[in-house]
Amino acid sequence: MGTYEENLEANRKYAEQFHLGEVPAPPAKKLAVVACMDARLTVEEVLGLKSGDAHIIRNAGGLVTEDALRSLIISTHLLGTRTFYVIQHTDCGMLSFTDAHLRERLTKETGYDAAHLQFHAFPKLEESVHRQLAMIRNNPFLAHVTDVHGFIFDVRTGKLREVEREWKSASNG
Amino acid sequence: MGTYEENLEANRKYAEQFHLGEVPAPPAKKLAVVACMDARLTVEEVLGLKSGDAHIIRNAGGLVTEDALRSLIISTHLLGTRTFYVIQHTDCGMLSFTDAHLRERLTKETGYDAAHLQFHAFPKLEESVHRQLAMIRNNPFLAHVTDVHGFIFDVRTGKLREVEREWKSASNG
Repeated sequence: MGTYEENLEANRKYAEQFHLGEVPAPPAKKLAVVACMDARLTVEEVLGLKSGDAHIIRNAGGLVTEDALRSLIISTHLLGTRTFYVIQHTDCGMLSFTDAHLRERLTKETGYDAAHLQFHAFPKLEESVHRQLAMIRNNPFLAHVTDVHGFIFDVRTGKLREVEREWKSASNG
Repeated sequence: MGTYEENLEANRKYAEQFHLGEVPAPPAKKLAVVACMDARLTVEEVLGLKSGDAHIIRNAGGLVTEDALRSLIISTHLLGTRTFYVIQHTDCGMLSFTDAHLRERLTKETGYDAAHLQFHAFPKLEESVHRQLAMIRNNPFLAHVTDVHGFIFDVRTGKLREVEREWKSASNG
């Protein structure tokens, strides 16, 4: 059985036992999480969250990009979240390349010019978490959300470590 | 105990029982999922995925935005994924407002001009899924990924329904 068939079969079983049909849309814990897409970072399990508890926003790196800001603004203004977490992790792929190298490689492999693409690779994990927190704190449409935490997830131990909360202003630019 | 303390306590328990320290970064199922951030859509449970199986990319709507494309390009070119799913869902918040209304509301509530913000609200669910699939299929850096599926998750029943795979080209613009 291939992955697609496995996933559909798993969903049939999930739906058979499903009992969450009345869970409301606004997150019960008033929490929104921005985390990396990494396969080893199962955000709900790592934080002990259940379905219905939190908005989960994920992308390569766990970056507070323009799209993550869009999602956070919708999350807090339309659905009432009041606490934000940013979770990045050790051994992140984003630490392993540079935008220039990936652009060059894509252009070579596909024949299409990749010079305009931004990947936001970063060399230092803790500094990146601080930068993401600053992106949230500096956004005027998120200024009412003051409960903001940044974490590094250790993929070897399963532990979250909170990064220092104070840092100079910075941007992803 | 507040949410933050609950989450940290849950993580302590998670780390105590953690046994995934040797799981490699490339997703075991060579799968990347783009899904909505909605609190009721716990992607891993809905699809029967385990930690290590898949990249999970999430944002408001489950949209193939520029940032989701960035993540998918990194996912497939650097970490070897070959199957992509897009999962949107019934009762999505993105069906409940228009960009114009939210911009107006934000400007009024915060005093900052929100006229430049794009939220990508959409009026029709199935059409939106097709549009996201087209964004993937029309991206030259993702052309080698031909196993692409679009689903609608029903928040009342827990069931995934696959949308038709053929559709005219469209964009999010």
